Amino acid sequence: MNFENTEKGKKYLERVMKFMELNIYPLESEVIHFHEKNPRKIHPVIKELKGKAKSQGLWNLFLPLSFGDYSPGLTNVEYAVLAEQMGKVSWASSVFNCNAPDTGNMEVLAKYGSVEQKNTYLTPLMDGKIRSAFLMTEPDVASSDARNIQTSIIKDGNEYVINGRKWWSTNVRHPNCSFYIVMGKTDPEAESYGQQSMIIVPVDTPGANIIRDLPVLNHYDHPGCHCEVELSNVRVPEENIILGEGRGFEIAQGRLGPGRIHHTMRSIGVAQRAFDYLCKRANERTAFNRRFSEMGMIRNKVAHIFCEIQKCRQLTLLAADKIDRVGVKEAKDLIAAIKLSVIPSVANIVDDVMQVFGGMGVSNDVPLAEMYTHIRALRLADGPDDVHAYQLGRNLLRKAKEHPEYDVQYFN
Amino acid sequence: MNFENTEKGKKYLERVMKFMELNIYPLESEVIHFHEKNPRKIHPVIKELKGKAKSQGLWNLFLPLSFGDYSPGLTNVEYAVLAEQMGKVSWASSVFNCNAPDTGNMEVLAKYGSVEQKNTYLTPLMDGKIRSAFLMTEPDVASSDARNIQTSIIKDGNEYVINGRKWWSTNVRHPNCSFYIVMGKTDPEAESYGQQSMIIVPVDTPGANIIRDLPVLNHYDHPGCHCEVELSNVRVPEENIILGEGRGFEIAQGRLGPGRIHHTMRSIGVAQRAFDYLCKRANERTAFNRRFSEMGMIRNKVAHIFCEIQKCRQLTLLAADKIDRVGVKEAKDLIAAIKLSVIPSVANIVDDVMQVFGGMGVSNDVPLAEMYTHIRALRLADGPDDVHAYQLGRNLLRKAKEHPEYDVQYFN
Amino acid sequence: MNFENTEKGKKYLERVMKFMELNIYPLESEVIHFHEKNPRKIHPVIKELKGKAKSQGLWNLFLPLSFGDYSPGLTNVEYAVLAEQMGKVSWASSVFNCNAPDTGNMEVLAKYGSVEQKNTYLTPLMDGKIRSAFLMTEPDVASSDARNIQTSIIKDGNEYVINGRKWWSTNVRHPNCSFYIVMGKTDPEAESYGQQSMIIVPVDTPGANIIRDLPVLNHYDHPGCHCEVELSNVRVPEENIILGEGRGFEIAQGRLGPGRIHHTMRSIGVAQRAFDYLCKRANERTAFNRRFSEMGMIRNKVAHIFCEIQKCRQLTLLAADKIDRVGVKEAKDLIAAIKLSVIPSVANIVDDVMQVFGGMGVSNDVPLAEMYTHIRALRLADGPDDVHAYQLGRNLLRKAKEHPEYDVQYFN
Amino acid sequence: MNFENTEKGKKYLERVMKFMELNIYPLESEVIHFHEKNPRKIHPVIKELKGKAKSQGLWNLFLPLSFGDYSPGLTNVEYAVLAEQMGKVSWASSVFNCNAPDTGNMEVLAKYGSVEQKNTYLTPLMDGKIRSAFLMTEPDVASSDARNIQTSIIKDGNEYVINGRKWWSTNVRHPNCSFYIVMGKTDPEAESYGQQSMIIVPVDTPGANIIRDLPVLNHYDHPGCHCEVELSNVRVPEENIILGEGRGFEIAQGRLGPGRIHHTMRSIGVAQRAFDYLCKRANERTAFNRRFSEMGMIRNKVAHIFCEIQKCRQLTLLAADKIDRVGVKEAKDLIAAIKLSVIPSVANIVDDVMQVFGGMGVSNDVPLAEMYTHIRALRLADGPDDVHAYQLGRNLLRKAKEHPEYDVQYFN
Repeated sequence: MNFENTEKGKKYLERVMKFMELNIYPLESEVIHFHEKNPRKIHPVIKELKGKAKSQGLWNLFLPLSFGDYSPGLTNVEYAVLAEQMGKVSWASSVFNCNAPDTGNMEVLAKYGSVEQKNTYLTPLMDGKIRSAFLMTEPDVASSDARNIQTSIIKDGNEYVINGRKWWSTNVRHPNCSFYIVMGKTDPEAESYGQQSMIIVPVDTPGANIIRDLPVLNHYDHPGCHCEVELSNVRVPEENIILGEGRGFEIAQGRLGPGRIHHTMRSIGVAQRAFDYLCKRANERTAFNRRFSEMGMIRNKVAHIFCEIQKCRQLTLLAADKIDRVGVKEAKDLIAAIKLSVIPSVANIVDDVMQVFGGMGVSNDVPLAEMYTHIRALRLADGPDDVHAYQLGRNLLRKAKEHPEYDVQYFN
Repeated sequence: MNFENTEKGKKYLERVMKFMELNIYPLESEVIHFHEKNPRKIHPVIKELKGKAKSQGLWNLFLPLSFGDYSPGLTNVEYAVLAEQMGKVSWASSVFNCNAPDTGNMEVLAKYGSVEQKNTYLTPLMDGKIRSAFLMTEPDVASSDARNIQTSIIKDGNEYVINGRKWWSTNVRHPNCSFYIVMGKTDPEAESYGQQSMIIVPVDTPGANIIRDLPVLNHYDHPGCHCEVELSNVRVPEENIILGEGRGFEIAQGRLGPGRIHHTMRSIGVAQRAFDYLCKRANERTAFNRRFSEMGMIRNKVAHIFCEIQKCRQLTLLAADKIDRVGVKEAKDLIAAIKLSVIPSVANIVDDVMQVFGGMGVSNDVPLAEMYTHIRALRLADGPDDVHAYQLGRNLLRKAKEHPEYDVQYFN
Repeated sequence: MNFENTEKGKKYLERVMKFMELNIYPLESEVIHFHEKNPRKIHPVIKELKGKAKSQGLWNLFLPLSFGDYSPGLTNVEYAVLAEQMGKVSWASSVFNCNAPDTGNMEVLAKYGSVEQKNTYLTPLMDGKIRSAFLMTEPDVASSDARNIQTSIIKDGNEYVINGRKWWSTNVRHPNCSFYIVMGKTDPEAESYGQQSMIIVPVDTPGANIIRDLPVLNHYDHPGCHCEVELSNVRVPEENIILGEGRGFEIAQGRLGPGRIHHTMRSIGVAQRAFDYLCKRANERTAFNRRFSEMGMIRNKVAHIFCEIQKCRQLTLLAADKIDRVGVKEAKDLIAAIKLSVIPSVANIVDDVMQVFGGMGVSNDVPLAEMYTHIRALRLADGPDDVHAYQLGRNLLRKAKEHPEYDVQYFN
Repeated sequence: MNFENTEKGKKYLERVMKFMELNIYPLESEVIHFHEKNPRKIHPVIKELKGKAKSQGLWNLFLPLSFGDYSPGLTNVEYAVLAEQMGKVSWASSVFNCNAPDTGNMEVLAKYGSVEQKNTYLTPLMDGKIRSAFLMTEPDVASSDARNIQTSIIKDGNEYVINGRKWWSTNVRHPNCSFYIVMGKTDPEAESYGQQSMIIVPVDTPGANIIRDLPVLNHYDHPGCHCEVELSNVRVPEENIILGEGRGFEIAQGRLGPGRIHHTMRSIGVAQRAFDYLCKRANERTAFNRRFSEMGMIRNKVAHIFCEIQKCRQLTLLAADKIDRVGVKEAKDLIAAIKLSVIPSVANIVDDVMQVFGGMGVSNDVPLAEMYTHIRALRLADGPDDVHAYQLGRNLLRKAKEHPEYDVQYFN
């Protein structure tokens, strides 16, 4: 065991931190306030910064070694450390072409896409020229069980006809959003894990309509937004199916692991930055004639938050390392674990820090409220915590039954 | 970064696990019940098992590489993994000569002892022929601030005269306990960190009297016990002082780090074993016509406990790794962190598991109540959690002031 | 002791519930969505409903018996039960003329106002013809310690000149907002509790400028809003001072008690309504082939939330009863207690329910996100929890020292 | 509503408090230490104090008005307030003849006993001349579901023959224990709630053997103890059946409510006393040059514990009041609520206070460890928390479905 970053990892970390220090932090609030006031536009500096990041090779770093030629060559662990930094500012990861859901879509296309799909969709996505969305969750069913997805994808000649209603489709409002990957049923009669397929739908396909924007705790996450989308007799060519009919569940599974690592590490970046705000506040603010930094309650909070961040980070790195060493499938328990055990902790941390800031904390004078909102949504993003806990518990109990570490005994 | 155990570490782990499987688990309850009924005796098999462990080289493994010739050659991280296993049975670590407080005393003597002190005390201790105690905490002062220690150690000719009252002195009742290391003031006029010294007191020195045994939640931890000890005009030769007058604080600091790693990792062993009991119970027990393993509440508990154990283990290994790489002093924050953040978690885990066992859980039909008692004491063992949190918070805020990672900004 | 509502209380409760059922619930979402889209307007139905409530005598019920002629005749306990109902819909209490901060301002004027102040400000406020704001908190100081308030109120001839900056001034954007009560220092040299005064400032007084609206977790609470207000050489006649110079602290204290009861009981209404949503969801929703209502985790949540709501309600009623029986001053500890112990619980309850609703929970398809935002702000509203805990702890320890219930003994 | 005690209740409270001040507190530790060292004896002063309490009319106060002639005339609420006081010292309630399980047995016999059963068992029990036990829980089944009870009670001529194994039978070791009430199956073929019966077994009946004493967290609760009891062909006359065959479940239900009020209120007495210890400690102890009472963390703890005790007390009184007004059956939800929501809180409170006492807290120099142990057992005593939460959640969801308070709506 060795908890030190690799030399390569350290160098990338230094470069990403430098980039953020020079280019991102100084513009942090300007970009956020711009998008609040201009919900449908991209701040002009973003394009410029993307060019700069790309030219420095800080681009698509999320694609790990297993992606061969597509990968800039980092392990999941090495990238995780960078994701933490990118997570510190809400719009930073997009500058590095490392933002969800585009990252997941790139993974899917790089792994499972046809040559033509790669040329048409993956290449410009990897170039940062277009954006994309992933249409999975539906309003009327518990989509945490992907088998419930009701959208139909019916073969009709050499086309597929898609009908359904999706929501929480992130990025759909993005001015550069170019296509959706849609999950739906091609064969309702197949066995339950073989009913679903994934298919590419260009945004301007007739019948694919944005119904409304959905707020998370009153926040609309402009410019990409989370939207409700109606798919009404949407027709796409049969070549748009990914990997083939009935492979949707399989693709969804593979998509989950690294994406979970990414957003969990970004969450840890959020927590770490909230911690930095906490320390700044504590070292500056005075009440009842004492500096916050001298108060027992504040010191206690600082200490406990520090500990919890360390624990969350180490657990997430452990999961990333397991993916690197034995693959997503074997790392399943740990991937569930970080969902359960990191995201809610980060939500609590940000909430605690907000409280120390008093009224300022819940306002938009500090990024804490935006952070909180984002993390709160993540507790639901790919299924509520409790669903993951339920399944993880079931799996662990099954394993314990089959392979008890020791046969523990009752004494009497 | 690399979260896989070293080859060497793996081999030792396998051997320790095998040893426990063959020799410890089968006798677990017998030894525990023996000591309940024979508080002043050692179960005869202990001696035999110590011989076996020693002959297999599973002996004094806690002394890390930095101890040179004294060390069997493991890093703190490698040993930590073994300590987890040893922690699974309350009396197991003594079989490997790896039990507190003897381990801490061996460290002190190996690092700071004179040649004569090493010959007289360290050698037989490392051989497992004698046991020892560490007399620090006092009943009338908050001993978590070591500067409060009141026991006086006064030079008189070529002797020191010791007066004071200690409590929570572990191992004092052990039939083989041969000497105490006593902390006390040699110079009340010195600056506060230079007043304390450590001195060796053989158990049969006149004036050193055991006053009473102290229970932890009604449990007396036989045969070693935690005792109150009166030191009344206790005279020892001046050579018994360790390292010199006024060095007590320094020695105490050095003693803390690895010891904390050990008992924290053993605690994780406790948590893991409680988890094993939980799984066993859940897979066997039925209520209201359903197996526990199928109940949502149970699965949820299993999942969350699994996550928390992973987090606790990774944090502790991180601290151990930091000690290995940069030393105890630099690892101070993480060493405080594991006190705060692991021990209370383990206490909660064991408590949760007890609850699932119903009445059996709090009885002595399973080792859970004993585990809980032990872990509950650890929350106080070298200072209550809150004291460590207070100091850690203070240190972190100071660091943040001097070296803020980024100068976070208010937006307005 | 008797935990049953009075006959009078029961009748009022029935009438308020009926009124809400007929008039408020059917319009709940329409009014909320109207204000989102028309931030500066009042929904036309509000005026009509106010007339209806007034004509039914469901008006100003918050003014308890101690207010003599001004009071419609309920005790604090009897009103508290009604406040719970009104709290169930965010805009309901204004229909009954029972919304903060107008209620507090009415109390202040009824208790301490001059005849002229009553005629000019209290009467139209009680008639529901105008609205008002309370300008206390300031951006640059910890206003939870009212002694820190920096705004200056300087006598100049027969006028007062006011300079300062306030924020979190609720209602300032309300189209009918007619005057502010401003807290500030008339005498910085007086002893600390005698420096502050309260003064009435009509909204159109030159120099009183709204700087910006403040969001709470991205939410602007239209149409009243929470604003930042600049007071720059604002001149008002000397008669506008309330009660006299240096009485500000005293008035602030008196204002706190009943207002705390009101918003705490409304919070319990929020919790109860969240609970109703939880039950509805649980009884309707299915996942993994089971109805939520049959899942252990859901049942557990339902049970624990039920218990916590009961506890919170009983504690708040106890505080209200103590105010009724012995007055605000004697009830101080309990008034602090409900701040500490009810509001955070309600926040957790709403958060738990949101989670059960998945994506819908954080959207605006149910009122949960709005509820959460409102309750989150209340954790800060008249000082963060921790400040109240600190002071309550100090008071209780002082009392325990002076009048220990029993002189508990150490056994050894 | 009226939260003030009745005049009658106040007078009894004053008398009980006075009695405890004069007679119980001064002997608290002496009696506890006596029983530790003399597990099979009763401290001689107990008998004397019982006489004194009886002569003062502080006797059997737990029997509420509904028991007619047997009742000394208090309501459940009035007695609850007294039970809190009695709970402050572990052995106090027995002095007032108000200790479990005798109280429950008296209720059963007073309500359901035949004239002969009353003469033989109830009269001496109410006189405090004998003690009794209640044999319900069994080691091999989840007894929280009473239908699982396996002990058989078979009619044979004019006798019943009992076979089974019970555990956690409290009081069985008491020197004056005279009879057991045993729950078991008379008819395994009946519908599930009609299989069980209760029967009286005199302690010296052949075949009723105490197998062993069971510790709770290492504590044996002398002199009454919790025991495992084997019933092997135990024969008793048919008149010993209570109420008739198949009525066991019904009797068990009726027994639960008031008993739950009693032990919950005693628990609140425990919490209140722990709070008194906390205040004493905080006002006396110094660390790092500051008195505990000046530390933010301590004040915070004091404040939060105060709040939680108030909440727990009010909830319990609410449940007692509901029993008084509408009976046990209608109060079922609240009786479950206090199990869930009070006992675990009290356990946490005592644990927090122990921690503030450092090593002394877990020792027997203060009664905190004994208190903790007792409360920990109560979390399991008549079924684990989770079982009650599960059932309460189920009931509440069913009610919400049948009678929703309002038909809450989704907005979209």
